[in-house]
Amino acid sequence: MKKFINSPATVVDDYLRGLSSAHGAILEWDPQNRVLQRRNPPSTPKVGLVGGGGSGCEPTHTGFVGHGMLDAAVPGQIFTSPVPSQIVAATRRAENGKGVLHVIKNFTGEVMNFGMAEEILYFEHLDLAQVIVNDDVSIADDGETAGRRGLGATVLVEKVAGAAAEEGMELHALTSLAESVVARSGTFGVGLSSCTSPARGKPVYDLAESEMDLGIGISGEPGRGAVPLLPARGIAALMVDEVLSDLSPATGAKVLMLVNGMGATPHQELYLMAGELEAAARAQGVAVERQLVGSFVTSLDQAGVAVTFLELTDELTRLWDAPVETAALRWGR
Amino acid sequence: MKKFINSPATVVDDYLRGLSSAHGAILEWDPQNRVLQRRNPPSTPKVGLVGGGGSGCEPTHTGFVGHGMLDAAVPGQIFTSPVPSQIVAATRRAENGKGVLHVIKNFTGEVMNFGMAEEILYFEHLDLAQVIVNDDVSIADDGETAGRRGLGATVLVEKVAGAAAEEGMELHALTSLAESVVARSGTFGVGLSSCTSPARGKPVYDLAESEMDLGIGISGEPGRGAVPLLPARGIAALMVDEVLSDLSPATGAKVLMLVNGMGATPHQELYLMAGELEAAARAQGVAVERQLVGSFVTSLDQAGVAVTFLELTDELTRLWDAPVETAALRWGR
Repeated sequence: MKKFINSPATVVDDYLRGLSSAHGAILEWDPQNRVLQRRNPPSTPKVGLVGGGGSGCEPTHTGFVGHGMLDAAVPGQIFTSPVPSQIVAATRRAENGKGVLHVIKNFTGEVMNFGMAEEILYFEHLDLAQVIVNDDVSIADDGETAGRRGLGATVLVEKVAGAAAEEGMELHALTSLAESVVARSGTFGVGLSSCTSPARGKPVYDLAESEMDLGIGISGEPGRGAVPLLPARGIAALMVDEVLSDLSPATGAKVLMLVNGMGATPHQELYLMAGELEAAARAQGVAVERQLVGSFVTSLDQAGVAVTFLELTDELTRLWDAPVETAALRWGR
Repeated sequence: MKKFINSPATVVDDYLRGLSSAHGAILEWDPQNRVLQRRNPPSTPKVGLVGGGGSGCEPTHTGFVGHGMLDAAVPGQIFTSPVPSQIVAATRRAENGKGVLHVIKNFTGEVMNFGMAEEILYFEHLDLAQVIVNDDVSIADDGETAGRRGLGATVLVEKVAGAAAEEGMELHALTSLAESVVARSGTFGVGLSSCTSPARGKPVYDLAESEMDLGIGISGEPGRGAVPLLPARGIAALMVDEVLSDLSPATGAKVLMLVNGMGATPHQELYLMAGELEAAARAQGVAVERQLVGSFVTSLDQAGVAVTFLELTDELTRLWDAPVETAALRWGR
């Protein structure tokens, strides 16, 4: 699989240079500290939000820095957690008088490196809190694994908590809010192909032309198993079953549905799947009140779709609708 | 190449159902007339804007219906022009007291079918005008071909003319404005793969793993020739040369740069290319004042990037920045 890159070693830096230049009014890339930050920090005190993780999942988190979402993002190398020194620098930058919340996807390296950064910052008398996003319903949280991975709910946590932080919510309440978004969310993904990492230059694993991969993540690893490919309607029914049987929303529950492309699945197929997923959710007595369709938590150039459902409350809906101005989400401002 | 579809015969309808449901506040899909239209027509008279073309290029034109862009879009079957009866229905729907402008990409079927629709409407005493978008600099406009194809400039014409129509500009002036956007634009695309049409189920043509395809269009046909793959910087220099040597902007010209993915090229590679393209333009004395990066005029699931430059004036910049609210472009409102 070919890519538009200069060399595997410079992909992340070259991407960040392009992103911060294209969105120069809102973003600033600090190559020394490897922190992507808001160009104009908020004028009144607010809790700072910092998200970070391996690169290759763009626009997560880099595309979500700006008004109403993150104050800073720390990108690691491809599929590799950012290092503690980056996280420390981003946290200091995001601190604006009311403490900092770390948004961490539940991957071993991310949890460890954010934890180390928090230890380093211990004596700086910063108010620090963290939320661990683990919305992946494809992995049993049974002590035999590192637990459910953080997937599409990351976007929802960053959007909702970002809006609340912008309104002045205190760190303790904001952390509870972010945790409630995680608890009310579930995600399941289906892949049609592997991705290709720049360093390797060919697909990470093979998937037959007649198969799809169930329970995919965002780091190039295979899902929990390949099965024969189904028509879109059958795939949607399967995905909705997986998430709703885990999430168990009340009958008539109102949900937000994120239909997330993995990087190489085009607009036409994503909206086609959105229609099928909404119909499948409706058939299970769930009302889709908000939809976001696009490629937001990706795995390089993988072909695939994941669905995330978030059971809404009036407050979550209001915070979702609040203005946002980032590279990848922008409305109402 | 696998796809998320139910069957090749229903792809377009299934997509439109999903799109109009996800954006139900602004869009309405009329399956009888096969017209996608604004749910809430403007309350004051304005020129109506209608765009249409073969499906497979989404979000063109369907994703651009809404405040500040199109009043209606007419999608054909995959890579096939909409039929005259669709265009007639859309035009009647878009008429709101000040006439209708047809935005037509320069493909033989599109030009013919919009022309037939205009003949059918001749006795209805509608004020009708058309603009033909032909920004593709890869094809010589020498009488031996059907001329330059309409590519990325379509988005720019629809955005700029849409903003001016919203402000109340009259049809004659609006047509001149749209023509000036076409005249001031040029596009060149590079493909890393063929696309796969749903009916065929496999790539339309072959491209070696060591090659890239120059001068690609948006209907699955091969470009003007395959050459050895280059690093991103080399590809960007080549693309900028192709467009700027055709467009010949004044030294120090201010331009809008659209970096357009063809469907399967992810966010990371698009922004990486945006950085390289901007640097290459700067090296030629051109200042990139506005950027739009994403997949807007696609060719199903083709991997590729096209760049469009539009030489700006203060008026064009102002109209570009004006509020827009559609499925695929949304800001400032």
